[in-house]
Amino acid sequence: MKTNPGRFFEDYRLGETIVHAVPRTLSGGERALYHALYPARGALYSSDDFARACGLPAAPLDDLIAFHTVFGKTVPDISLNAVANLGYAEGRWLAPVWPGDTLRSESTVIGLKENSNGKSGVVWVRTRGLNQRGEAVLEYVRWVMVRKNRATPAPEPVVPDLQSVVPATALTVPAGLDFRNYDFTLAGEPHRWGDYALGEKIDHVDGVTVEEAEHMLATRLWQNTAKVHFDATFREDGKRLIYGGHVISLARALSFNGLANAQMIVALNGGAHANPCFAGDTVKAWSEVLDRAETAAPGVGALRLRLVAVKQGAEPFALRDEAGKYRPEVLLDLDYWALVPR
Amino acid sequence: MKTNPGRFFEDYRLGETIVHAVPRTLSGGERALYHALYPARGALYSSDDFARACGLPAAPLDDLIAFHTVFGKTVPDISLNAVANLGYAEGRWLAPVWPGDTLRSESTVIGLKENSNGKSGVVWVRTRGLNQRGEAVLEYVRWVMVRKNRATPAPEPVVPDLQSVVPATALTVPAGLDFRNYDFTLAGEPHRWGDYALGEKIDHVDGVTVEEAEHMLATRLWQNTAKVHFDATFREDGKRLIYGGHVISLARALSFNGLANAQMIVALNGGAHANPCFAGDTVKAWSEVLDRAETAAPGVGALRLRLVAVKQGAEPFALRDEAGKYRPEVLLDLDYWALVPR
Amino acid sequence: MKTNPGRFFEDYRLGETIVHAVPRTLSGGERALYHALYPARGALYSSDDFARACGLPAAPLDDLIAFHTVFGKTVPDISLNAVANLGYAEGRWLAPVWPGDTLRSESTVIGLKENSNGKSGVVWVRTRGLNQRGEAVLEYVRWVMVRKNRATPAPEPVVPDLQSVVPATALTVPAGLDFRNYDFTLAGEPHRWGDYALGEKIDHVDGVTVEEAEHMLATRLWQNTAKVHFDATFREDGKRLIYGGHVISLARALSFNGLANAQMIVALNGGAHANPCFAGDTVKAWSEVLDRAETAAPGVGALRLRLVAVKQGAEPFALRDEAGKYRPEVLLDLDYWALVPR
Repeated sequence: MKTNPGRFFEDYRLGETIVHAVPRTLSGGERALYHALYPARGALYSSDDFARACGLPAAPLDDLIAFHTVFGKTVPDISLNAVANLGYAEGRWLAPVWPGDTLRSESTVIGLKENSNGKSGVVWVRTRGLNQRGEAVLEYVRWVMVRKNRATPAPEPVVPDLQSVVPATALTVPAGLDFRNYDFTLAGEPHRWGDYALGEKIDHVDGVTVEEAEHMLATRLWQNTAKVHFDATFREDGKRLIYGGHVISLARALSFNGLANAQMIVALNGGAHANPCFAGDTVKAWSEVLDRAETAAPGVGALRLRLVAVKQGAEPFALRDEAGKYRPEVLLDLDYWALVPR
Repeated sequence: MKTNPGRFFEDYRLGETIVHAVPRTLSGGERALYHALYPARGALYSSDDFARACGLPAAPLDDLIAFHTVFGKTVPDISLNAVANLGYAEGRWLAPVWPGDTLRSESTVIGLKENSNGKSGVVWVRTRGLNQRGEAVLEYVRWVMVRKNRATPAPEPVVPDLQSVVPATALTVPAGLDFRNYDFTLAGEPHRWGDYALGEKIDHVDGVTVEEAEHMLATRLWQNTAKVHFDATFREDGKRLIYGGHVISLARALSFNGLANAQMIVALNGGAHANPCFAGDTVKAWSEVLDRAETAAPGVGALRLRLVAVKQGAEPFALRDEAGKYRPEVLLDLDYWALVPR
Repeated sequence: MKTNPGRFFEDYRLGETIVHAVPRTLSGGERALYHALYPARGALYSSDDFARACGLPAAPLDDLIAFHTVFGKTVPDISLNAVANLGYAEGRWLAPVWPGDTLRSESTVIGLKENSNGKSGVVWVRTRGLNQRGEAVLEYVRWVMVRKNRATPAPEPVVPDLQSVVPATALTVPAGLDFRNYDFTLAGEPHRWGDYALGEKIDHVDGVTVEEAEHMLATRLWQNTAKVHFDATFREDGKRLIYGGHVISLARALSFNGLANAQMIVALNGGAHANPCFAGDTVKAWSEVLDRAETAAPGVGALRLRLVAVKQGAEPFALRDEAGKYRPEVLLDLDYWALVPR
């Protein structure tokens, strides 16, 4: 067999590190495509001049470009035979990614738990994205349910003890970042860190109806190869499931309207792809302020935000039903930290 | 309210200058996308070597990339609550835009006139696009009909006195441009400035059927956020209106076939989006030579051209019906000056 | 007539060289788009670092970017009035193409044969792609059936004597290429040149369902202007025919799964677009090892591969029916040489 069948549950060993294939050099081309694919308007990622006025050498690539690139490389080794993408935790952006950087990924297996039916199990991995100097630019924990292929003995169950939230003290602020001369007019909104109240909810108003061509272009761009996104003959219903990361980027870009100054993502506390998204769906987003923290960087505060993506038919700010389940219109429930001018 | 509701008619003050948000650094990525989105083949914009042979340091970005980028930034402040985009005048390209340049926009309110129904009014703005050195690269006047939100007294009506055509003496030829050694073979057609006769009409033959994904990718690329282009739940008929600038770029690119040597756009005399364009429409174009002028630059002449975009069902060169109204198949009627080798 | 009607059969002269228009400077933007349009994962084209470890100064642009760019320029002169694209032969990649390079194309007419019906004829051209230093980066022979427009005497028939396969000794290995330290883990598969057996067939498993927007974006990107790809009103059935090169790139990218180490295409021995491809088709691919050869470059072997693209409904490895005709699900039958680590 020359082709890669992907790993099954019994193929993972606790503590092993998997080096993922196909390093990728990014350029202004990926940035331009990101702007074409998502309504992204964060000034820090759009303008070299704006970024320089904030103490950076130039505009970095969007933090989610780094995430998607690193994530895409893991798919052939981690989620080719995944039944479900169960969660994220302890995600931290550790250094900006610039045009010209080359990213690669590796994942360490930190947890294994076979399901009682013996047909699948949950695999926890800690994935790191590394640049061409071997510096970590991003790390996160992800767990997926993976099918078993052979009747093997269940491994000793190990469930990692994960932080429910990355503590504010663990956030990495990019070297040099300084928001003291932040230009709120050029950024697009006047709201400072102190203007956001705990529990405040923001309806981001705008919506985007998604086309098949768009989500496939995006998913391929990150070299994510999962069949279910591309092959209309793969699922019985003939639908192509939209890569969950596409919904993350759509929602994050839509959140500009109300959170234009939530410039940099520095941590991913958790996230759930609550319901599948398909072409034809109209995606909207709302946010909730979950926490606030100061940082040591001049003029830089941090907001912990819930970002919820919903589709047509959603009621304002409705997340779960009485039974505690996500409502069917909810696509994404993401919990992250962003850096905001004080 | 953290989100931007856009300005209503009563929010504009005569003489005020609005600084638009989200400056943008452009790269070869935007150029590549422009080639993917439009059948653009102008050699001066396609090849660094061709541009150098014409006295420029490298191939500039397409003049319409500059236009769309500058225009897109104005949308949240000028046309978010616009009922109609009524016209353009006095558009002038003042300097080429190169990969690596950062563009921002600002608009001065130069006219205000409330409609007699008291529910809306017309706003005239002069918009300037500036690069990272603060140099103007583009300016144009645009007027839009904007809804009123509150019952306020009508302002003193001021209708600016606009030139119907930018005079040839006011055209700015890019520094260094020299068409004396122009390579007509590499440019794609042999026709010189002197080969075009006043009143001559050219059917550009080719057609492009437009897809939803294409116009949304294009419109997002320019960070134009008007809901009506993206959200299929916004209009009652479930259609997404195609950004008028997408039709401008399509028609201009199609006009290569017959106007391959109309290399640089230097002025926009006027323009009307005659009828809406929707996905599934097949766009074709024809041109009419309206005027000719010499310039002081070596080998460089100017043609004033009418560029008309039509959709399926249009009759050759048909523009208006007996009542003087645009025929329903006409999408765009644009009047511009282009630089052509003599 | 200012527009280009294209050449008809009677317009070609044996031995003439046609210089094609619109040179093109390529950048990281075209590379990013290539990754968005095709599931391309060849590490040598994805990562500057990987390419440097293989002795190259940086990652070249995908060999098929060079092919499409060179090919696209020939369309207005060679295939605008073509009835059919009949074949390829003697294709050789002669030098890598890098971001910043400017490509142009020229074609020499090497064969002419009028059909017995007097209404069309076959034209053979040898096309060369040249970079900004005038160095050939690619050459190939292509023959097309072209309509006649006027009743002219048939030319003396000249059918060129073409090699059925580019001999291994004629393959050009890029200067400096060295696979002795090739990183199979980062490349994505462990299979070396010696692991592939003559006659071995590989089902590449993955499939991609094609959208209208995708093939039009791709075809425009290469400035290929043939109406049949873009204008839904052109064919009687309202379908837009997908550019054959789009299927080539799709199939080549899909072949990563099983041929991840078939890094560089160095020759095109032949190819047939067996059946048309339309939006909605799901494209899959399989390969067959036709030959193996050594090269003088350190650690570098060559595989001659058949690459077959099929659509939904295809049976495994089925190519022709009993009568020897391509089965209706077969889209492409391509024969090429690729460089593989030994």
